[in-house]
Amino acid sequence: MNNEFAQRRDLIGAGLAARELDAMLISSAANVRYLTAFTGSNGALLVLPGEALFFTDPRYAIQSRREVSCKTQVCKGPILAAVAAMVARRRIRKLGFEPAHLSYDSFHTLSDSLPARTSLEPVAGWLEAHRMLKSETEIALIRRSVATNSRAFERSVRRVRPGMRESDLAAEIDYHMRRLGAEKPSFETIVATGPRSALPHAHPTSAVFEAHQLVLIDMGAFQDGYASDMTRMLFLGTPSARVKRIYRAVREAQLAAIDAVRPGVTAAHVDRVARSVLKAFQLDRAFVHSTGHGLGLEIHELPRIGKKDKTRLAAGMAITIEPGVYLEGFGGIRIEDTVVVTQNGCEVLTPTSKDLRVV
Amino acid sequence: MNNEFAQRRDLIGAGLAARELDAMLISSAANVRYLTAFTGSNGALLVLPGEALFFTDPRYAIQSRREVSCKTQVCKGPILAAVAAMVARRRIRKLGFEPAHLSYDSFHTLSDSLPARTSLEPVAGWLEAHRMLKSETEIALIRRSVATNSRAFERSVRRVRPGMRESDLAAEIDYHMRRLGAEKPSFETIVATGPRSALPHAHPTSAVFEAHQLVLIDMGAFQDGYASDMTRMLFLGTPSARVKRIYRAVREAQLAAIDAVRPGVTAAHVDRVARSVLKAFQLDRAFVHSTGHGLGLEIHELPRIGKKDKTRLAAGMAITIEPGVYLEGFGGIRIEDTVVVTQNGCEVLTPTSKDLRVV
Repeated sequence: MNNEFAQRRDLIGAGLAARELDAMLISSAANVRYLTAFTGSNGALLVLPGEALFFTDPRYAIQSRREVSCKTQVCKGPILAAVAAMVARRRIRKLGFEPAHLSYDSFHTLSDSLPARTSLEPVAGWLEAHRMLKSETEIALIRRSVATNSRAFERSVRRVRPGMRESDLAAEIDYHMRRLGAEKPSFETIVATGPRSALPHAHPTSAVFEAHQLVLIDMGAFQDGYASDMTRMLFLGTPSARVKRIYRAVREAQLAAIDAVRPGVTAAHVDRVARSVLKAFQLDRAFVHSTGHGLGLEIHELPRIGKKDKTRLAAGMAITIEPGVYLEGFGGIRIEDTVVVTQNGCEVLTPTSKDLRVV
Repeated sequence: MNNEFAQRRDLIGAGLAARELDAMLISSAANVRYLTAFTGSNGALLVLPGEALFFTDPRYAIQSRREVSCKTQVCKGPILAAVAAMVARRRIRKLGFEPAHLSYDSFHTLSDSLPARTSLEPVAGWLEAHRMLKSETEIALIRRSVATNSRAFERSVRRVRPGMRESDLAAEIDYHMRRLGAEKPSFETIVATGPRSALPHAHPTSAVFEAHQLVLIDMGAFQDGYASDMTRMLFLGTPSARVKRIYRAVREAQLAAIDAVRPGVTAAHVDRVARSVLKAFQLDRAFVHSTGHGLGLEIHELPRIGKKDKTRLAAGMAITIEPGVYLEGFGGIRIEDTVVVTQNGCEVLTPTSKDLRVV
C-alpha cells in the first residue's frame, strides 16, 4: 500500500503545473492520511513537483517514522510556521491551500509568516475529487469495514429485549465492532426508540425499549481508516398496518434508488428517484435529508446524493443510499446500505437483510 | 440548567457593546452547545444585545425544539446564508465571528452574502475564556464523568492477562464507560503495550500483552457532554529497576505539578515544576508534550499547561496534569489526573490509585 500513497502524491505533484501552482499545502487530516498513511491528528503535507514534505509535532515523531514514507520534519513550534519557513527556503511563489480545511485564523497565521513574494491560492476540492473514486485497495477496505459492521449488528441485535436501554444496545454494538477489528465507530452510533426515532441524529439515551415500538439503529465502523454506514429498523412486537405501510414505502424508495445507481447518472437523479417513490405514498415531505453521501476515509465524502448535486456517478464511487421518513410523535423509519458504483450499475456491499426485524 | 444557558447568552449579549459589536456569530459546535444546550453537529448562534437566534438544518428540527430555549430558525439551505439574511434584516453593521471556528471558505461565503454596510470582525477566544471557568453545575458534570471513567477502568483492568490484544482492552473500556452512563469516549482510547507505549497517541492494535511489558492506558469519557481524562500504567510481571525508577520519576513530577496548582500561578509555572523534577532524573528531554490541558465540553480546552502559557490559574478551572517520559525501544510512562483548581489549591477528581499496577 505504501506505493499507492507515493503514487497519489506524485499525481498531485504532477497536477501543480496545470493549476499554475509551485506547491500545494494539504491541511485536512483525511487528505493528509490519503497521501501519506499518517493516522495522527496533527500533520500537514507540502506537495511540490516530484517531492513531498510532511510536517508533524513531537508527539508523533516515532509514529510518523513508521507510517510516513516521505521526508518528515518534526516541528517543536507551530506546524504552519515550519511550513512557511520551508516555503521561503524553496522560493515557492504560488502556494495552493485547502480553503475548507484552513481556518480564517490559520490562513492569516500562514499568510503573515510567508515572504511577500509568495501568494496563497485557494484550491477547493482537489483531493476530495480524487478521493471520490476509490481504488481496488480502498474498496476492499470499505468492504471489510461493511462486513465488520454487519457482523457487529447481528451479534448485538440478538440481545435486544424490552427493558434494554438505547445506550446499552449502542454500547454492545460499539463493543462488537471493536472486537471484530474496527478502530472505532465511524460516527456516534444511533439507537433511537419509539417517537425518538423521528430525530434523524438522535444520541442514545437511557430510554428503554418497550413493546409495540420501533427501534432505529444507524451504525458504521472505521476499520483501517475506512468507513461503513448502515441503518436498520427493529420492531418490538407486531407492527401496526401504519408501520408496515411506511416501512414498505421507505424500502421501495431505497430499492428504487439503488436500481438507479449506475455510471453516468447524476447524484441528483438518484435522490429524485427515492423522493418520487415516497411522493407516491404522500410521504415525501417527511423525508428531511439527502438520499445519501459518499464515504471512505471520512463518513461524509463527495458526492452528496442530494437534490442539487450534479456529480455524474462513476465506477469506483462508494456511497450510501438511505431514504427515511420522520413523523413527529410516530417515529422515523430509515433503511441504509453502503454501495459501490460498478461498470454496469452498483454492488450493494451491506449483506444484512432489509426486512423489518421483529423482535 | 436551562436558566444557566440563557444567562450565558445574556452575558455575551451584554459584552457586545464593550467590543463595539452589534452582534456575535458563534460557529464552534462546543461554543454553540455552551450557549444553547444544542447537542447536534450543525448549528450556529447569532447573539444580539438581549436576544439570541439559533440556526440549524431540518435534520435537527425536532431535537432543537427540545434542547434549545431561544428563537430557532430551521434552514432548508446553508445555515450561513440564513445568518446573512438575518444580519441584513436586523441592519447589523459590526458582526463578530470566531476566526478559529470559521474556515477560510465559510468566511468568504458569509462575507459575500452580507450587505456592504456590514463588517466582519474576528473575535478570538471570547467564549473559550468564559468556558475556562467552570460553574458548579459544570464541575459536578466533570466529576461524574471522571467517576464513570475510573469505574470503567476498574471493571476493564480486571480482565487484563497475557495474550489479550490492545484493541480488546480498549473495546472493554469503551463498553464499560457506556454502560456506566457515558455517551462515548472523550477521545480514542489509548492502550499501548511494550515499546508502543512510547507513542504518546498510539491507536490500539492487535498487538497482544506479553509478560514483562508495560501497558499504557489513556482514557476519558464524555458524559452529558463533559469530558474526563486519565492515564494509568500496568505492568505484566515484575517491573525491572529501570521501569521502577522511571515510574517514580514521572509520579514525582506529577505530584509536584499537582502541588503547584493553585489560583494565581501561571500554567507555565506548573509545567516548569513537572519538567524540573524530570530534569533531576535526567529525563526531561524524553518529556515531549505539555504537562496538561483544560477540559470541559471539549477534551482540549484552555488553558494549556505548557511552557509558554502565561494564563494565571483561577478557582473553577478544570485541567489535566499528565507528565510523561517516552524512550524509543523502551516504552512510555505517563500518569494523568483530572483536577479542579480550588480557592486554596486544587482538588484531584480522579480517584484511581497512582501505584504502578502489577498484573
